[in-house]
Amino acid sequence: MERITIIGTSPIGVSIGLALKSANLKNTEIFGTSGDRQALSIAEKRGAYDKTSRLLREAVEGAQLIVLDLPFAEMREMLEAIGSIVDDGCVITDTCSTKVKVKEWAEAFLPKGVSFVGGHPLVKREHSMMDDATATLFTGIEYCVMPGVTADEQSVKTVIGLIEMMNARPIFLDPHEHDSYMTAMELLPAVMSSAFTSTMSNSPSWREMHKLTGKNFAQISGLSAIDPLDNDTACIANSESLVHWIDQFIKELYEFRTKIKDGSEDLVKAFIASWEDHGKWEAGAVVKDDDSNRLPTSRESMASAFFGERLSKRYSILSGGDKKDSWIYKK
Amino acid sequence: MERITIIGTSPIGVSIGLALKSANLKNTEIFGTSGDRQALSIAEKRGAYDKTSRLLREAVEGAQLIVLDLPFAEMREMLEAIGSIVDDGCVITDTCSTKVKVKEWAEAFLPKGVSFVGGHPLVKREHSMMDDATATLFTGIEYCVMPGVTADEQSVKTVIGLIEMMNARPIFLDPHEHDSYMTAMELLPAVMSSAFTSTMSNSPSWREMHKLTGKNFAQISGLSAIDPLDNDTACIANSESLVHWIDQFIKELYEFRTKIKDGSEDLVKAFIASWEDHGKWEAGAVVKDDDSNRLPTSRESMASAFFGERLSKRYSILSGGDKKDSWIYKK
Repeated sequence: MERITIIGTSPIGVSIGLALKSANLKNTEIFGTSGDRQALSIAEKRGAYDKTSRLLREAVEGAQLIVLDLPFAEMREMLEAIGSIVDDGCVITDTCSTKVKVKEWAEAFLPKGVSFVGGHPLVKREHSMMDDATATLFTGIEYCVMPGVTADEQSVKTVIGLIEMMNARPIFLDPHEHDSYMTAMELLPAVMSSAFTSTMSNSPSWREMHKLTGKNFAQISGLSAIDPLDNDTACIANSESLVHWIDQFIKELYEFRTKIKDGSEDLVKAFIASWEDHGKWEAGAVVKDDDSNRLPTSRESMASAFFGERLSKRYSILSGGDKKDSWIYKK
Repeated sequence: MERITIIGTSPIGVSIGLALKSANLKNTEIFGTSGDRQALSIAEKRGAYDKTSRLLREAVEGAQLIVLDLPFAEMREMLEAIGSIVDDGCVITDTCSTKVKVKEWAEAFLPKGVSFVGGHPLVKREHSMMDDATATLFTGIEYCVMPGVTADEQSVKTVIGLIEMMNARPIFLDPHEHDSYMTAMELLPAVMSSAFTSTMSNSPSWREMHKLTGKNFAQISGLSAIDPLDNDTACIANSESLVHWIDQFIKELYEFRTKIKDGSEDLVKAFIASWEDHGKWEAGAVVKDDDSNRLPTSRESMASAFFGERLSKRYSILSGGDKKDSWIYKK
C-alpha cells in the first residue's frame, strides 16, 4: 500500500485530496493531517482522505509522497519538523506562492535521500473557504514545478504525474523568475488592495460612504481579506522586487493622474491601451515573441478585429461631428 | 394602458425590464428601445419587454415613465434629443454612476412639465454581459435616488415604487456627495486597475509573465475591461475629486512601500488594519457614528471577537517563542 500525505487543510490541499480520491488510485491511501482539528474533520467528511491523524509523525512515516499545503509563514517550521521523521526516498512537494525561500529551507532541513520538488498551482477560481474546495479546482490551470537540487528524475515524474492527474498543466521555471513574476502579478495586487481599503476606511467620510459601496469597491478591496500574516511574510521574503514593482505601478498611476488633471486627450488612449492589453490577455492572444514582422495568428487577428470593431462603434456614437448619423437623432 | 419605456440595453436596463415583467403590472406595457439592434433583439427574446421599436419617438411618446440606461458619455445627447418629444407629465429616471452633470443636463434640456429623478443602483453582482441580466439583479441592494429641482412629490414616489418593486432599498442623497463617494469607491478602482494592467503589460517580462497569471492578477486587472470611453468621460466629469483620491491612495501605498523597504514591524499592523476594516465592512459592522463611548452593537462585538480569535490563533502559531505549544512540534 502506497501513501500520499497532505499536510494542511486550505481549500488547495483539500482540493488535492478530493482530486486524488476521485482518481481512484489503486493500492494508494490518501492521508490527511493538520493542526486545525475542525478543518480536518470537515475535509474528512467531504471525502478528501482515506485516513487522518493529528499526529504529524503518524502521517509522515510511511508516506511516499507528501504535499505541504501550508501558509508560507509556517513552511520553515514544518520542513524543520518533518526533516527528522520523513522516510528515505520520500518525495515532498508544496503549494506555496513564494519559492526561493522554501527551496532554501528544503535544502537546509530535509535529509539527502528525500527529494523536494516545489509546486505552485495558479488557481483561477475563488478559494478562500473550505466550501471552495473541489476535485476540479485544478482543471486546465498552469501548475509551476521547481525541482530542488536533490530531486532525482523519478521524483520529478511523480510530481508531474500528480499534477497531470488533477488535469493541470505543469510548467517548469526557475524559482527566482517565479518569485519575481508572482511578486508583480499576485503580491502587488494584495498590497494595492490593502492600501485602497485603508485609504477608504481612514477617510473622514467612511462612516457615510461605506453604505454606498458597489461592485468596483468590492472587487478592488477584496484582496484585503488575505491573511495579514501571510501578506507580511510574503512581502518580507520578496521585499526588493516588490518595492520595484510598487514604484513601477505608482509611476504608471501618476501618468494617469497627470492626464486626468490636465484634461488630456491622451487619457482615453491610456484607457484603451490597458483595455486592449487586458482583453488580449483574456483572449489568450498576447504576442509571445519579438518577431514583429511575422504574420499575426488567427486568434490575434480575431482579437484585433473584435477590439477595433467595438471601439469604432463607440467612437462613431461619441464623435458627434455629424449628429445625423447618430441613432439618437434618427427620431 | 400605461407605458414604461427603457432606453438602452445594458445588463442593468435589461434587468429592469425583466424585473418589471416578472412583477406582472396590470395595464402597463414595458417598451424597449436601443440603437443596438442586435442587443435589443436578444433582450426581447429574453422577455424583457412587451414591445420594442428602434424609433426613439415611437418609444418615448405616450410613456409615463422613462428609464435611461445609457453610458454617461451618451446621456447629454439623449436628454437633448428626448427633451422635444417627451410627453408632459412624464417621469424620467436614469442609471448613471455620475449624477451632478446628468442633473445639470436634465435641467437644461427637459421641459418644465417633465420630472427628472436621478437614480443609481449599486449593483453588487457582475453585470458586464447580457447574460448577467436577471430579474433579481437589484434584490437587496442600495439604490441612490436624487430628485431634480423640477421633480414633484408624485414623480419621486413613482421612482421609489419602481425601486421597491425590484426589491432594492432607495437611499436619498445629494448628487455632489454621491459623485464624490462614487469617485473614491468606484472610479478610483477603475483607474487603479487600468494602471496596474499597463504596468504589467508594459513590462519587458510581460510576454513570459502573462502565462503565469493567477487569481489576484485576474481580480485587480478585471476593471480594465470597463469601456475606455466610459472611464474617460467619468474621469473628466469628476477630475478634481478623482485627483484628490488618487493622491490619498498613492500616499497610503507609499506608506506600505516604506514599511516593506525598511522591514518594519509595523507592516503587519498595516495589513491587519485593512484586513479588519474590510472584514467589518463585509460583515456590515462599520461603526456608524462618532459616539465612541457608546456600547458596541452585538454585530460589532461578534465581528471583533471573530477577528480577535482568528488573529490570536495565527499569532500563536507564528510566535515561535515556545515551540512546544505548536502543533507541528507535537510529533
